Amino acid sequence: MGNATNIVWHDSKVTKEDRQILKKHKSAAVWFTGLSGSGKSTLTVAVEKELHQLGVHTYRLDGDNIRFGLNKDLGFSPEDRAENIRRIGEVAKLMVDAGLITLTAFISPYQKDRDKAREIIGEAEFIEVYVKCSLETCENRDPKGLYKKARAGEIKEFTGIDAPYEEPVNPELIIDTEKLSLAESVQTVIHYLLEKGFIPKTN
Amino acid sequence: MGNATNIVWHDSKVTKEDRQILKKHKSAAVWFTGLSGSGKSTLTVAVEKELHQLGVHTYRLDGDNIRFGLNKDLGFSPEDRAENIRRIGEVAKLMVDAGLITLTAFISPYQKDRDKAREIIGEAEFIEVYVKCSLETCENRDPKGLYKKARAGEIKEFTGIDAPYEEPVNPELIIDTEKLSLAESVQTVIHYLLEKGFIPKTN
Repeated sequence: MGNATNIVWHDSKVTKEDRQILKKHKSAAVWFTGLSGSGKSTLTVAVEKELHQLGVHTYRLDGDNIRFGLNKDLGFSPEDRAENIRRIGEVAKLMVDAGLITLTAFISPYQKDRDKAREIIGEAEFIEVYVKCSLETCENRDPKGLYKKARAGEIKEFTGIDAPYEEPVNPELIIDTEKLSLAESVQTVIHYLLEKGFIPKTN
Repeated sequence: MGNATNIVWHDSKVTKEDRQILKKHKSAAVWFTGLSGSGKSTLTVAVEKELHQLGVHTYRLDGDNIRFGLNKDLGFSPEDRAENIRRIGEVAKLMVDAGLITLTAFISPYQKDRDKAREIIGEAEFIEVYVKCSLETCENRDPKGLYKKARAGEIKEFTGIDAPYEEPVNPELIIDTEKLSLAESVQTVIHYLLEKGFIPKTN
């Protein structure tokens, strides 16, 4: 495999741009951050559904497919949370390179870790979405009963209770789930992707 | 975000099958294994090129985008090699879930680690390709000068020199790069994907 033909082939790798052309849209990491119960998971599922119906090639990273797989060796200490977010950032970067609109739904409580993800993925293709909701409302919703367990001391280092959540300093989008309906929230994200040219207006 | 509409949306997540329908082909991890210099990288680049020209949605994982990113914290001890391959297996699984024909080009010298990747990804979507080439030929090719450095003791734990390579026990495909041209090697892989129905015969 050492002839001239190889070299030509090896030099013309399929690039991110090639993959985007095939998919007929740009790629990006849409990084949802917020407290447990803020609505990140519901929102990313609904945004992916809407994008898919528009013919957009997507992937969604969340606790279900990351915490039980790639990051099953990690806990919830600040160090492990940092490594958790670093790896998710690296995987999201690969997904963006693959040409996909990649949605991530993780609490990602530390600004430093989110900034690291932004650095890994690159400013131009990183969209930080703050899924805003008061701790009180999140705790009232408590869809998985986790706040109750955290208050009872059954879960340690739970964000908002005995671990901090640092609000995004300068996110690309803020979605206030105490004020917007799910449909409105979805449309806010879709509108941003259209306006910024990540997805075409006539798909 | 607690009304009936949410629940419907949340229940109807975009699935792997939905993504495959959009892409008009199945997904799989095509796992190339072989010595340094056997031709894995050249072959996967060329296979991806061919698939892309057929309109197939692909992604390629290799040392360039993994060892300097996700796995930059790992070395070359047997433990680190196992963790390296585990993480690549987990990422490939996500890529397959995203609907992509995913090509991986790593020495992946231990059968146990490759079996672990197979287990993570799932038998039905894992295609182990042994890129076969004698150590002597690989060392003569030495495209990156690594064998020379390993022989001089400048690189430790180098597969084939002072670290073992375990030949695949029962790979789906064997590509002997001492006998086949690059074009023939590519066609062998494409033919397999067509015959097994991963990509459609008329795309």
